[in-house]
Amino acid sequence: MHRGLYPGRFQPFHIGHLEVVKWSMKHVDELIIVIGSAQESHTLSNPFTAGERIEMIRRTLDKENLDLSKVYIIPIPDIMMNSVWVSHIKTFAPNFDVIISRNPLVNRLFKEANVEVLQPPPFDRHKYNSTLIRRYIIEGNEEWKKLVPKSVLDYLLEIHGDERLRSIAGL
Amino acid sequence: MHRGLYPGRFQPFHIGHLEVVKWSMKHVDELIIVIGSAQESHTLSNPFTAGERIEMIRRTLDKENLDLSKVYIIPIPDIMMNSVWVSHIKTFAPNFDVIISRNPLVNRLFKEANVEVLQPPPFDRHKYNSTLIRRYIIEGNEEWKKLVPKSVLDYLLEIHGDERLRSIAGL
Amino acid sequence: MHRGLYPGRFQPFHIGHLEVVKWSMKHVDELIIVIGSAQESHTLSNPFTAGERIEMIRRTLDKENLDLSKVYIIPIPDIMMNSVWVSHIKTFAPNFDVIISRNPLVNRLFKEANVEVLQPPPFDRHKYNSTLIRRYIIEGNEEWKKLVPKSVLDYLLEIHGDERLRSIAGL
Amino acid sequence: MHRGLYPGRFQPFHIGHLEVVKWSMKHVDELIIVIGSAQESHTLSNPFTAGERIEMIRRTLDKENLDLSKVYIIPIPDIMMNSVWVSHIKTFAPNFDVIISRNPLVNRLFKEANVEVLQPPPFDRHKYNSTLIRRYIIEGNEEWKKLVPKSVLDYLLEIHGDERLRSIAGL
Amino acid sequence: MHRGLYPGRFQPFHIGHLEVVKWSMKHVDELIIVIGSAQESHTLSNPFTAGERIEMIRRTLDKENLDLSKVYIIPIPDIMMNSVWVSHIKTFAPNFDVIISRNPLVNRLFKEANVEVLQPPPFDRHKYNSTLIRRYIIEGNEEWKKLVPKSVLDYLLEIHGDERLRSIAGL
Amino acid sequence: MHRGLYPGRFQPFHIGHLEVVKWSMKHVDELIIVIGSAQESHTLSNPFTAGERIEMIRRTLDKENLDLSKVYIIPIPDIMMNSVWVSHIKTFAPNFDVIISRNPLVNRLFKEANVEVLQPPPFDRHKYNSTLIRRYIIEGNEEWKKLVPKSVLDYLLEIHGDERLRSIAGL
Repeated sequence: MHRGLYPGRFQPFHIGHLEVVKWSMKHVDELIIVIGSAQESHTLSNPFTAGERIEMIRRTLDKENLDLSKVYIIPIPDIMMNSVWVSHIKTFAPNFDVIISRNPLVNRLFKEANVEVLQPPPFDRHKYNSTLIRRYIIEGNEEWKKLVPKSVLDYLLEIHGDERLRSIAGL
Repeated sequence: MHRGLYPGRFQPFHIGHLEVVKWSMKHVDELIIVIGSAQESHTLSNPFTAGERIEMIRRTLDKENLDLSKVYIIPIPDIMMNSVWVSHIKTFAPNFDVIISRNPLVNRLFKEANVEVLQPPPFDRHKYNSTLIRRYIIEGNEEWKKLVPKSVLDYLLEIHGDERLRSIAGL
Repeated sequence: MHRGLYPGRFQPFHIGHLEVVKWSMKHVDELIIVIGSAQESHTLSNPFTAGERIEMIRRTLDKENLDLSKVYIIPIPDIMMNSVWVSHIKTFAPNFDVIISRNPLVNRLFKEANVEVLQPPPFDRHKYNSTLIRRYIIEGNEEWKKLVPKSVLDYLLEIHGDERLRSIAGL
Repeated sequence: MHRGLYPGRFQPFHIGHLEVVKWSMKHVDELIIVIGSAQESHTLSNPFTAGERIEMIRRTLDKENLDLSKVYIIPIPDIMMNSVWVSHIKTFAPNFDVIISRNPLVNRLFKEANVEVLQPPPFDRHKYNSTLIRRYIIEGNEEWKKLVPKSVLDYLLEIHGDERLRSIAGL
Repeated sequence: MHRGLYPGRFQPFHIGHLEVVKWSMKHVDELIIVIGSAQESHTLSNPFTAGERIEMIRRTLDKENLDLSKVYIIPIPDIMMNSVWVSHIKTFAPNFDVIISRNPLVNRLFKEANVEVLQPPPFDRHKYNSTLIRRYIIEGNEEWKKLVPKSVLDYLLEIHGDERLRSIAGL
Repeated sequence: MHRGLYPGRFQPFHIGHLEVVKWSMKHVDELIIVIGSAQESHTLSNPFTAGERIEMIRRTLDKENLDLSKVYIIPIPDIMMNSVWVSHIKTFAPNFDVIISRNPLVNRLFKEANVEVLQPPPFDRHKYNSTLIRRYIIEGNEEWKKLVPKSVLDYLLEIHGDERLRSIAGL
């Protein structure tokens, strides 16, 4: 059996992320989604708590009828030493064979640790982009609502996530 | 909908824990199992990593045909300030209404934070007891094999968990 | 009885801060002044230690004949998780009913924690501004001496605080 | 002018502590009371938060008509390196000339840092003793009520501090 | 070329440690001596700073005419996660092939990380024992002076290390 | 005897650093080279681990026939409080009399702690500059190979350090 680990910050979880999840589930038997920087929240780059991000992802996978018994969603706080980061991830996550990521630092660290890296396709990276989505929310540009899955949109409105981001920005 | 949060260290996950999970799933709609002291491993009181504990629990719930789409398993590292511990748990976990625990400190902290506490029955606490199980493993007393679910037993033997515990004890 | 909590970094404590303190003491019975980022010092944005900032504030309140028996001055180090910051503040400070702040993040965090927020008037914010004062000190612009209370000025000269800031800037 | 620094954990602040404060105020012009292990609370040895301990001390000094304008009460979290502890204290506290303590480690660390140490008399150390007081509270022995100042007693009952300690002890 | 890594706390460095160093230098080309718990000092179990322990070891190796160009002495602070400890050591130390240790936990952790472990002979373990030496110093038993190399003895007397240990013990 | 302490990050160790070492060894009897930010690696500003930096320096000193018995190379992790940094350095390093540095913050902190500061000459600072060297490596500009000692160049190529830096930069 093959298990893949897909790390991200998911601030918020958007359609590009969902595409990576779907693509991954065709390439591995089980998927571990790691929510990185889990200790962060209420900042301009990391507005949502780990718990909120878990909820976004679970609701979306559920709505998409993806098999939850094949998925692990695991929040992991940062550790301020890149050289031990791979061991840190291995501590918090069940065993895995392959990393699914396009992030240069992540890929380098796992490569140095002799873990196989699988690069997913980019899935419209310039459009589906968390930085862009957060900027749209701050600017009050409704365009962001098309860039996240329907269940994430509903959830963010339910918890007033857009309002939070704008408050923190001082608006 | 009601969501309950059940915190524990699960070193290892035993039959008493499984009983609490089953009992809880009858009292709440969804259950969050929090794996505490997630950063700990390879000590006499905390021999197994968070990832290993996730694996033990998932395999058991799966074997027991419990509905994984109603369960969240979330590792949370310690924070060395009891007074912020409740907020810390709320950061890492999705929203919840009730705490399921018999631990006096846990119950006090949530009570002071005005969260409802639900005490599960003791389920043969003196028999199903992680401290006892770890002691049996160290002493080479096979009795421990009857105190954990079959899937936990198989997993521990697979990862040589018993051997690890005995090594650390200097045996 | 009403107690208010007024958080700031006070690098250094200036006339605008003093105005907020005076204004606050008319709106609450007791005032807790929290010195945030208490662990920071000797940087361009945080040149002074918590102890030095306590001294600045105490000397000023004393000179202004403000009633010290109604004021608490409490240094609090940062905690790197916004989601637990309110609990962190509540741990270090005596009980309080209301937050006195114009900082968007502070106000958002306390609002989410259901604590009442009282916004003081801006008191010439563009003139009395710690960033500006530090820049003036670094540039050797004597204008800064008019922006802090006399007792802060005397204290900063006494501890060679201006010289420290210029040294750190490499001047 | 002489300033003394008196460090303690004050769990809780008892009559022996109060005697040290009174004695100290006769030997120095100003007194800094440092509340150590400020991050700790809700444990058997450290049941009360720093904020609660500040409140106990302030109320007592107030009731005793001690001059609050001569006293600083400063919570300081632990730093896990004894060799930097003196610098850590100096960061959080205003400048001081003398340490007031009978604790062997505290006295050694300040002596190695060339700070003068003043040993207060023991003031019935075996009777007025925080460990003993906490044990009495847990055991339900009313004797503890005579060992703390009246204002501490009233405050502890007001916040149900005795009940908290007993809860944490599992009673 | 073979490099070995020999970890210890060396509180203080005694004749048994010196024997391990000599033995090791016959089995590897270069030796890395890791001073663990480097952040600790001024406690009953860890009385000496990392810098003091470096000094003890350097002076001894020098006196013994061991080739310093084949030895690295590296202080490493603790990391509170056993599962990342091996990576942590690898970060601070130059590359190495083999671990030289009799410590059960150390050996287990390196074994799980697939690093070869070389067990040195015990060298009169019951006699040359840091815990015993510290106890002798505290009790004022001169016997300890025979258990450390002459250069360590001279150094400890020079820095009043015996006096420090007795002070901390409250004597 | 005089001992000097020369702190730096050495990312990487270049010819300017080597000149400072040589110059220092003429001014003091023994030299402690402190590798700062020892916990950092795999970032654009701190690409190399402490262990790798130790190796660069040792190989270079060896090749240059500098007397290793007069040199200590000590990695020290950051501590996030400038006010305790001097004590932190003193904990990890053997005793020293003088600081060798041109860094404004370092010099200020040691000056406030009454440690003598010795400023080495600048040694072609604009040419031999770690930031520049890292930029050249990232840009693929071979010029960097002339700015580091031959032994550092060989070592970096051996561990594919240039490739690592370019990977992290996303190239």
